[in-house]
Amino acid sequence: MQGEVAIGEKQDCPFCVNPIFKDSSLDHPRKIAELEVSTAVLGRTEQYFRGYTLLVLRGHATELFDLDPETRRKFVEDATRLASALAETFHPIKMNYCLLGNTVEHLHWHLIPRRHTDPDPKRPIWESPFPNVQLSDDDFQSMAHEIRGHL
Amino acid sequence: MQGEVAIGEKQDCPFCVNPIFKDSSLDHPRKIAELEVSTAVLGRTEQYFRGYTLLVLRGHATELFDLDPETRRKFVEDATRLASALAETFHPIKMNYCLLGNTVEHLHWHLIPRRHTDPDPKRPIWESPFPNVQLSDDDFQSMAHEIRGHL
Repeated sequence: MQGEVAIGEKQDCPFCVNPIFKDSSLDHPRKIAELEVSTAVLGRTEQYFRGYTLLVLRGHATELFDLDPETRRKFVEDATRLASALAETFHPIKMNYCLLGNTVEHLHWHLIPRRHTDPDPKRPIWESPFPNVQLSDDDFQSMAHEIRGHL
Repeated sequence: MQGEVAIGEKQDCPFCVNPIFKDSSLDHPRKIAELEVSTAVLGRTEQYFRGYTLLVLRGHATELFDLDPETRRKFVEDATRLASALAETFHPIKMNYCLLGNTVEHLHWHLIPRRHTDPDPKRPIWESPFPNVQLSDDDFQSMAHEIRGHL
């Protein structure tokens, strides 16, 4: 499903120009889905927290208050729908939802299933270093497929 | 302004029973405002990141997908309004918005103004340890007052 593009692109933004977000196909192994105003992809280097997903707004904006209320509502509904699918897939004890944008200033959610087995389940994942877990394209594809089945 | 209570309380939840959230007055030095469905208070131990604010849902819920869509919309509009006020007060380079709930499983935003002078402005604040900055009640009260002026 190709949803609408909320707003314009920004030519020097790494997300705006990345084919994984520009191309509406699901060909990329890490891509989960195109939701109403945003695109869901599995985190490339964060799968130590299995299911770690980025949900990237289509079109460029930096802050929640830069969006018009209706686009903001859709962006949050996309995040809610995806978080629910992640919860049904991975049965976490808690979901974490973060809009940071410190490195790439393009609105995107970090959606992170948290587990009792995390190094410190009561604290933000960034407080302890965690390894970069390398998954194969097949692993990514099958995880994306499984999550998609719960959307 | 006393907004509505979105949903019921939970008797063993530290936020549900805390007077700073139960009492609708602004008497507490750290309290910024009662917004439509949530209450804004300055973080007690996180003022190393000056302006660090918690926005706590009135009534108990754990996950975004546990809220009905209209309460969720209001909760996000509250966060957006407050983030905009924090941005006007502190002129950060970026706002960070996190729903974690790993320690207290009651929906609340961490709203964090980020600055060039942060230890690592490109990374989440939790990646480097930061000191617990002790502010006086007067300091809290004047900061809360200043933010309130931008709401």
